[in-house]
Amino acid sequence: MISEFDLIAKYFARPVSKADLGAGDDCALLRQTTGLQTAISTDMLVSGTHFFPDTDPEELGHKSLAVNLSDLAAMGAAPVAFTLAVAIPTSNEAWIAPFAKGILALADKHQCELIGGDTTRGPLNICITVFGQIPTGQAIRRDAAKVGDDIWVSGTLGDARLALAHMRKELILPENQFLQVLPRMQKPTPRVELGIALRNIAHAALDLSDGLLGDLTHILDASHAGASLNTDAIPISNILQQQDQVWRLQCTLGGGDDYELCFTAPPEKREQVLDAARQAGVPVTCIGKIEQQPGIRLSNAAGPLEHTGISSFDHFASLKK
Amino acid sequence: MISEFDLIAKYFARPVSKADLGAGDDCALLRQTTGLQTAISTDMLVSGTHFFPDTDPEELGHKSLAVNLSDLAAMGAAPVAFTLAVAIPTSNEAWIAPFAKGILALADKHQCELIGGDTTRGPLNICITVFGQIPTGQAIRRDAAKVGDDIWVSGTLGDARLALAHMRKELILPENQFLQVLPRMQKPTPRVELGIALRNIAHAALDLSDGLLGDLTHILDASHAGASLNTDAIPISNILQQQDQVWRLQCTLGGGDDYELCFTAPPEKREQVLDAARQAGVPVTCIGKIEQQPGIRLSNAAGPLEHTGISSFDHFASLKK
Repeated sequence: MISEFDLIAKYFARPVSKADLGAGDDCALLRQTTGLQTAISTDMLVSGTHFFPDTDPEELGHKSLAVNLSDLAAMGAAPVAFTLAVAIPTSNEAWIAPFAKGILALADKHQCELIGGDTTRGPLNICITVFGQIPTGQAIRRDAAKVGDDIWVSGTLGDARLALAHMRKELILPENQFLQVLPRMQKPTPRVELGIALRNIAHAALDLSDGLLGDLTHILDASHAGASLNTDAIPISNILQQQDQVWRLQCTLGGGDDYELCFTAPPEKREQVLDAARQAGVPVTCIGKIEQQPGIRLSNAAGPLEHTGISSFDHFASLKK
Repeated sequence: MISEFDLIAKYFARPVSKADLGAGDDCALLRQTTGLQTAISTDMLVSGTHFFPDTDPEELGHKSLAVNLSDLAAMGAAPVAFTLAVAIPTSNEAWIAPFAKGILALADKHQCELIGGDTTRGPLNICITVFGQIPTGQAIRRDAAKVGDDIWVSGTLGDARLALAHMRKELILPENQFLQVLPRMQKPTPRVELGIALRNIAHAALDLSDGLLGDLTHILDASHAGASLNTDAIPISNILQQQDQVWRLQCTLGGGDDYELCFTAPPEKREQVLDAARQAGVPVTCIGKIEQQPGIRLSNAAGPLEHTGISSFDHFASLKK
């Protein structure tokens, strides 16, 4: 059996250029520059909780880093580096090789350097900590939404939850539809370029990982505000469009794992928002307003909607399997 | 059952002063200062691999952070902040409260701020990433040992392995002796002050987590050098002193988890090394020499020793239970 040290060397030892020192010592070293802030986020993905045990390892590698890059995107930070800790049941090269391929391909795409980590024996668990940088004071926080702001989302929402619904047999999609929505769950695209382009434009932002209602509530709580949303405006794929309203709402409002950005910006910056989106190559849609009154008010063309029964995802309240 | 968000808020939400932004947003933010480097290390501790499932949660909290602070110490970096990701089987406050107490007490002692994290459901797994800082160029690396350097270790070696031997019933210690060595395994002291005091004195350093032979080999490989060690000089407790030579060597050379520092320094800096140790309040002992010839040569008063049968700990080769 290949040893821990050989395994690290074979699949994860890589030269660094942004970092002053990469993996192989007690610590990695990153240079500091006055006027910049380091943005740091950590996410742990557990087999059976966040992904099915038989998930393709290359896609899992991609997703593990993607969800962390998505947190950088939500702050407007540019990726710099990451550390990777992995517990695996056995030293299985047939799993590690494609996992490394998936994670490093996405890392290379965003010039995000692997600077250290840990591999150990244990139930499958992947913990990544990611480092980005941003000019001091330009980070897009959750607590800065202002009454009157437009509420925007990127891309389309709900397809990741729709794929999960099919896998759980909560509904049955035609095979070709399932294959189209599946990558939204298994291989999310972190909106890194959009986050950076929204610096000095967006007031508040986060990434949608637990469903729009729950995630937006984090912005509202932190900003001491409320919101109204036009559910007709929420951008969805033409596949989700074919589902009934209950599923459309469940997937967009309550579904997680889309990793689109939700952000607020003042109405006078609408053109700048649209320019930023064009620059980043991802569509954005205005779906509501920040208001003084706490809570989220939903409506569509027919009038106000009650949103009872749709709740955000909570890793302890409802296991994702 | 308490939810994920409530749990984080109740036990882990803390104000920050060193960090620009702590937990609660997509990312934490740390200020950068030209002339400093950020030292980063990550360690994952898995139930059944790194600790017994029934380990006292307060001690486990302490140890989880201690092993990471020990990596900062080994570079000479001053602790700044850390992130904490935890997977636990159930949202169990009776476990989390003492775990948080243990980890935060050590964090406070070293003014190391908790700036973010993740809690999720899964087999017990703790992943910490720690951040330190150090003036650019002063980090004590593994690859800078020079032929002729003295080899030093801090404290005493082997008691953590001795405690493990008792727990595994490989040998039986009198109860009072076991209770004296047990804290070396369960509640290691990271040598943070010593690491900082050794800046510009030590050439190379690391912390001893896998046993002296294996760990020293990392310095030797990185520095393209060899070493001779006087096993009589290796500092051990009076409890380990009472074991036969085989166990004394197994515990000091092959035993892990001591978290003492092993470092090299030129002979002309002996006084400075001893001053640094006094300043840090921890004894240090010279146990050998860096030599040109690759490999490690052991000897004692009786002459050269063969060290067959003692190998360093490898998380895949030998499960710690």
